[in-house]
Amino acid sequence: MLTSPELSPAQALYKKAKRLIPGGTQLLSKRPEMFAPERWPSYVKKAKGCRLTDIEGHEYLDFTTMGIGACLLGYNDPDVTEAVVKRVESGSMCTLNYPEEVDLIERLLELHPWASMGRLARTGGEAMTVAVRIARAATGRDEVAFCGYHGWHDWYLASNLKGEKLSEHLLPGLDPKGVPSCLAETAWPFEFNQIDQLESIVKRRAGKLAAVVMEPMRSAKPTAEFVQKIREICDREGILLVIDEITAGWRFNFGGSHLALGYEPDITVFAKALGNGHPIAAIIGRSRSMQAAQETFISSTYWTEGVGPVAALAVLDKMKVIDVPAHVNTIGALLGDGLSRIAKQEGIPLHIGGCPALLHWAFDHPENLALQTLFTVEMLKRDILTSASIYPCWAHSPQDVERYLDAAAIVLPKLADLLGQGKAAIERELGSPVRHTGFSRLN
Amino acid sequence: MLTSPELSPAQALYKKAKRLIPGGTQLLSKRPEMFAPERWPSYVKKAKGCRLTDIEGHEYLDFTTMGIGACLLGYNDPDVTEAVVKRVESGSMCTLNYPEEVDLIERLLELHPWASMGRLARTGGEAMTVAVRIARAATGRDEVAFCGYHGWHDWYLASNLKGEKLSEHLLPGLDPKGVPSCLAETAWPFEFNQIDQLESIVKRRAGKLAAVVMEPMRSAKPTAEFVQKIREICDREGILLVIDEITAGWRFNFGGSHLALGYEPDITVFAKALGNGHPIAAIIGRSRSMQAAQETFISSTYWTEGVGPVAALAVLDKMKVIDVPAHVNTIGALLGDGLSRIAKQEGIPLHIGGCPALLHWAFDHPENLALQTLFTVEMLKRDILTSASIYPCWAHSPQDVERYLDAAAIVLPKLADLLGQGKAAIERELGSPVRHTGFSRLN
Repeated sequence: MLTSPELSPAQALYKKAKRLIPGGTQLLSKRPEMFAPERWPSYVKKAKGCRLTDIEGHEYLDFTTMGIGACLLGYNDPDVTEAVVKRVESGSMCTLNYPEEVDLIERLLELHPWASMGRLARTGGEAMTVAVRIARAATGRDEVAFCGYHGWHDWYLASNLKGEKLSEHLLPGLDPKGVPSCLAETAWPFEFNQIDQLESIVKRRAGKLAAVVMEPMRSAKPTAEFVQKIREICDREGILLVIDEITAGWRFNFGGSHLALGYEPDITVFAKALGNGHPIAAIIGRSRSMQAAQETFISSTYWTEGVGPVAALAVLDKMKVIDVPAHVNTIGALLGDGLSRIAKQEGIPLHIGGCPALLHWAFDHPENLALQTLFTVEMLKRDILTSASIYPCWAHSPQDVERYLDAAAIVLPKLADLLGQGKAAIERELGSPVRHTGFSRLN
Repeated sequence: MLTSPELSPAQALYKKAKRLIPGGTQLLSKRPEMFAPERWPSYVKKAKGCRLTDIEGHEYLDFTTMGIGACLLGYNDPDVTEAVVKRVESGSMCTLNYPEEVDLIERLLELHPWASMGRLARTGGEAMTVAVRIARAATGRDEVAFCGYHGWHDWYLASNLKGEKLSEHLLPGLDPKGVPSCLAETAWPFEFNQIDQLESIVKRRAGKLAAVVMEPMRSAKPTAEFVQKIREICDREGILLVIDEITAGWRFNFGGSHLALGYEPDITVFAKALGNGHPIAAIIGRSRSMQAAQETFISSTYWTEGVGPVAALAVLDKMKVIDVPAHVNTIGALLGDGLSRIAKQEGIPLHIGGCPALLHWAFDHPENLALQTLFTVEMLKRDILTSASIYPCWAHSPQDVERYLDAAAIVLPKLADLLGQGKAAIERELGSPVRHTGFSRLN
């Protein structure tokens, strides 16, 4: 009788998770399959700075996206943790409101003087849905033109109801099953820096667009013309400009990146790094837009707990006095330059994309995904957690980068030997499945 | 020159909040106007058990809804706080997943053996939207029949797009501005215990209903026939039964109240008391329904942080060994009986509604709202925070009830003197505005 090989505690737990949780995790980007199927440590015991210990007791230096962009200060930041613990230990939920929610909104408005009102939520997805509801209420229109990734909600996935249109917007394969079919013609995608595409949508859907929803930047910076024309179009057509700073915010400058890039939003949404790992999201906007939130019901019990605002205030207090954007830019540049240098030395076609603060890289090779998976697996053996996207954080030091590059200097040459040998050889060396990209059903 | 009277720190802060936050708070039910406009303490400094200190340093015994139903164990429960602080201090967000999310889902499935898969979210509103998305994806249908209150999202508010239909469902006046107009015929309300109304919807919308969404109970218990017929209708029509346990769950029995009431759901949603004040929500369901979550994109970064599941597990651990439902029933009954007794002695027409665990009361008098406001204001003077809805919690003792009733025994006779004197006299005695009910724009 054949017996299956013993699974490690982490692999066994993830196997159970896939039986109990549709999709295995609560976030697509945290699926072990997105990194290295059957090899990724999957579950954490403790985390601090840029280091973590998995549930099997292995310690790793972490050069991933650091909580999918949430932990810009690093894990378990001492100042944020101190503020959060203080709030928890003095009671973080009751029938009254927490004064820090007013303080947080006031602080965000000071940093973004174009805005004069704000609301809070706890997750980025729901905060974007609040923003779209407000824009629809303020304009009396239902449709949205958008660019980039904005979450799981109906207003966004509706775009995929008539054939996949979101594939160019970060995540391929997003299935809109269960989104009401009548929403099919309410969400219109355009590509970043392609103002003609937006103009064409505005022409086709004249008078119907409530909002232009976009990430201010992700892989590339916007052109000055793109930024200026978007505002012109919105003004001309009575459309609200909603800037989604969930990933970009605080990473490129202190505040929303729209401040540095020249956008003039009507509404802006923050989440992720605003709480450095503690759930909080904020929607700020001009009074004329936000007043519409008085005329539509937007209300949720857990938006009133006390930890979120306290965490965000501690994050802002800290980021006010340290230069996080300069630091993560330096770390990302050291890392990208180092990787490029090693790849060049070894004759490996490695392409660095994005910007230093939101780095991603790929092999210019048909077996890119298998090679990336193998890279991750080999780095895991050297106690480094990494993949093809790296979001540096405040806790990363140049010495950490050095350690990463020392390991890469051993791993990349191993990969170089495989480059000419084709798929079978790479997969044999890998010995486990190739990583996934995008959304797909798990077996 | 006239100067306006000095505002107290709490009133000044709330005045600022109304300038900066559309609606003043993040939850309608936490608006000071819902209790006693211009008098309610509004903001909290610390909370513990059934006591809290406001930002002006006043201490109160709290007999309100205890965090709008979230803090069933009382504020800042020592066991939950200990578990949460431990998780925060060991890092509560990183790129890997928290094993407790699997543990929590497993625990919920053990307690609800009809269910075999689960997902987590952080707020009740978004969790209900996950449930509806799954039901729509599983059935390939878009419409929903519902009963009760289920939050701020489009699928629910759509019901009010063609005239207000939600007024009988807990909160009157919910404005659906900003909900896409094409959703107008996707949400159909029926009243609790009125199976004919559901039958009529099913007949009119044959083959179009994805789900029947309902609270298992709130003010009254369902009849056995109602419970049985709902399941029969869902089976006959291929509709999924989604039970919203956000308010009812854990309060009447350990687990969803559907277990005790005889409902056989396809999907059930928990939030509020599951985290005892720490944001967590869970969606559990039968495999045949939940597998649809594999085929539609449902994913959010902050659904993966580590505090929510740890808090929920601590709550379940504690509630497994203490009898919270019996205790809150006893406290609620003592309170309701005591209030009735005093009212009767004083000849006050006071009507107790709901059930002891979700108590509400009203004066059978044309000036009910003014009288309720005056009651709240007079109780505040006696250091008791209360209003017309009282959700007892584990931290309330019979001695706390005694203190409440001692105060009520002084306050109610004061009100009795005003009953025959009409509106002007009551409002003069009150000296501040009458409380609001339902959703309305703030000035």
